[in-house]
Amino acid sequence: MAHNRCSGSLTSPRVDVLVDTGNTFLDHTVDGFLKIGAVAATRAAAEETFQCLGRGEFPKHKLEDTLKRMFREGACWGTVAGVYVGMERGIERIRGTRDWKSAMLSGALSGALISAATNNGRDKVVMHTITGGAIATAAEFLNCLT
Amino acid sequence: MAHNRCSGSLTSPRVDVLVDTGNTFLDHTVDGFLKIGAVAATRAAAEETFQCLGRGEFPKHKLEDTLKRMFREGACWGTVAGVYVGMERGIERIRGTRDWKSAMLSGALSGALISAATNNGRDKVVMHTITGGAIATAAEFLNCLT
Repeated sequence: MAHNRCSGSLTSPRVDVLVDTGNTFLDHTVDGFLKIGAVAATRAAAEETFQCLGRGEFPKHKLEDTLKRMFREGACWGTVAGVYVGMERGIERIRGTRDWKSAMLSGALSGALISAATNNGRDKVVMHTITGGAIATAAEFLNCLT
Repeated sequence: MAHNRCSGSLTSPRVDVLVDTGNTFLDHTVDGFLKIGAVAATRAAAEETFQCLGRGEFPKHKLEDTLKRMFREGACWGTVAGVYVGMERGIERIRGTRDWKSAMLSGALSGALISAATNNGRDKVVMHTITGGAIATAAEFLNCLT
């Protein structure tokens, strides 16, 4: 008696971006900008699509708004990630080790830099410095735990 | 001619918490809760201290408010981290691999669970699911980059 068998596997497509500017710091910064920017743009698109599905309509101006929001949020998240990645690489090279202290310093400096660059006052810059350091430390701890 | 030389090194104290409940998932969840909760409490304390320094006064009621805020934020960040760590461990064990897809799923499920538990409406739960997935994916990408 013959048996017919069917087997298969499902794999998701693999897409990667190779950045090579000849400078390691710049490569990682651009890589961070592109990858995290893409995540933020996808999030914005998913949220807007869900809202349209709820209303049951897809007006043309909504598509334009969605594209603008994807670009804006992608650029914002990407900039934060790019600055953080470049900063962490630099601090790790100076300190010669990778630990939560490097992550905290990088997060704090990135928070301060981005906050100062967006014309915030002294108090807000300090708050963003503290928050940046806390988020980066928490992310490093979580990374060690999982 | 004799030379006097002085050498030394500066190391920060190392504090770690060992959690052993006999269950690996529970150990990691409690560990995540404690570590991330401590980071959030430290951030709240740093922010409140900076505000008091700015005003130049440390009233007694402010100390109580600070302790309450440290407890509240520590519990909040700690819960999110604990749920996420437990979820990621479970999904990694089911899928048998650790990648951005596991992180995205864990982040999305954690976002949905915490949002639903805090009595949010359907729309908000979906938004928090999308945001949770996006943040976890971005963190995993950043982790691979740095």
